[in-house]
Amino acid sequence: MTYCIGVKLDAGLVFLSDSRTNAGVDQISTFRKMMVYEKPGDRFMVLLSAGNLSISQSIREILQVERLENGDEPPITIWNATSMFDVARVLGSAIRRIHDQDAAALAHAGVDFNASLILGGQIGNEPMRLFLVYSAGNFIEATRETCYFQIGESKYGKPVLDRMITPQTPLDEAAKCALVSMDSTLKSNLSVGLPLDLLVYEANALQSEKIVCIDDHNPYFAMIRGAWGQKLRQVFESIDDPQWGSDSATYPLRAPSRYEPMGKIHHPGEKIL
Amino acid sequence: MTYCIGVKLDAGLVFLSDSRTNAGVDQISTFRKMMVYEKPGDRFMVLLSAGNLSISQSIREILQVERLENGDEPPITIWNATSMFDVARVLGSAIRRIHDQDAAALAHAGVDFNASLILGGQIGNEPMRLFLVYSAGNFIEATRETCYFQIGESKYGKPVLDRMITPQTPLDEAAKCALVSMDSTLKSNLSVGLPLDLLVYEANALQSEKIVCIDDHNPYFAMIRGAWGQKLRQVFESIDDPQWGSDSATYPLRAPSRYEPMGKIHHPGEKIL
Repeated sequence: MTYCIGVKLDAGLVFLSDSRTNAGVDQISTFRKMMVYEKPGDRFMVLLSAGNLSISQSIREILQVERLENGDEPPITIWNATSMFDVARVLGSAIRRIHDQDAAALAHAGVDFNASLILGGQIGNEPMRLFLVYSAGNFIEATRETCYFQIGESKYGKPVLDRMITPQTPLDEAAKCALVSMDSTLKSNLSVGLPLDLLVYEANALQSEKIVCIDDHNPYFAMIRGAWGQKLRQVFESIDDPQWGSDSATYPLRAPSRYEPMGKIHHPGEKIL
Repeated sequence: MTYCIGVKLDAGLVFLSDSRTNAGVDQISTFRKMMVYEKPGDRFMVLLSAGNLSISQSIREILQVERLENGDEPPITIWNATSMFDVARVLGSAIRRIHDQDAAALAHAGVDFNASLILGGQIGNEPMRLFLVYSAGNFIEATRETCYFQIGESKYGKPVLDRMITPQTPLDEAAKCALVSMDSTLKSNLSVGLPLDLLVYEANALQSEKIVCIDDHNPYFAMIRGAWGQKLRQVFESIDDPQWGSDSATYPLRAPSRYEPMGKIHHPGEKIL
């Protein structure tokens, strides 16, 4: 499995990926899932991939040579496209090419054509854009209401993103949030693993040097893992336990409800509310 | 979908279930998923169910009349079984009976025979026991290392359980933790919904009056939802943001790693580390 996050903020973009791949639980390997495409001052693009590794590696391999026909104009590539939308189309085309090559043989072997990708970046004067690209080559774009995408094992780490991330979130805070989300996922799911690749892109920079590989000795991530668990416990303990007996509780657990409590079933099948 | 939790602690058992069922996103209904079987002083049992509603309702319907042949002895039922293990076997037998009745017709309609159940309780002098029962009628039992089970939409709410629950956790703290786990799930997944049924059983009581139905006006759950989100944000803000630039950071983000940072790919395909 895999867990990757891409976030689009007013201040820039944040990308985080794990590096575990597995075929069953006894074939675990490390493959990194982030690709960075940069032409400083012209374009900056990041691709995160999940799904079948042979498919995503093939897609990445041909992405740089993939061309979209463009009438009388030269074909569109990721290096001459004038918009991220066109880059997403090139990526979609690359996915469909790999599908044409491999899907039938995979299906014959009982393997789904399974790939999902996050593509984000900025070209020239266009605003930053972030896309989620499906295995059929179609894609959706992040908006202000839904400003992040996840691929892979996304559920464990979603609540904290839902609670913390808005378009106004500062870049480093969003990076911290992505790391907390990753920590929750690592803690609950073996199929996601270190090292992590973290990249932060500042709006309109058209390049980035904020790229780091985080392994299990990284002081910042180790601090996050320790502090988050410990402080979460403090918060948890600071919240009142439910009180069953007292009518004088500030926040009574027994309260009028539209529904009655579950009735008990007594032998021989008599239900007493 | 559904989300249910059963926890076995030294101090007792905690059960929590939601009540949303859906067939697609445009057929949402409320069906409660907890059944309570009590013969005060003799036995106390709780059943939580997830999966296809017609299957789980059918299982619940026949559970009370299901009998396991027992040689020359009278057949074993949930009301005369001398161990929770035997009750789990009766439940497994009920599941298999419904499978025999319905599975072929369901398969013909393209519907999986999909049911999973949590069964917990105590009989006589036997210790409390908690089981996870699968749609094939087989089951596993909770241990001290793994003292809780979830069924349904379990991933969103798993990290907080993993962090907080141990066999030593007090009952009301575990109930609070289950409610926090449910809150995270409600927040991230539409297919889980109020009202909730919460039941707390104290070890060796062989009965319980701590049963409550929690709807969206419940003061305690409303407090949890507000306080948890708010305090989570405070904790989040109290943790240092990553520092990219400074070598003097207490917890540097850039640190020696076994792996190099991701190289950038530059046009025309040159990779620069």
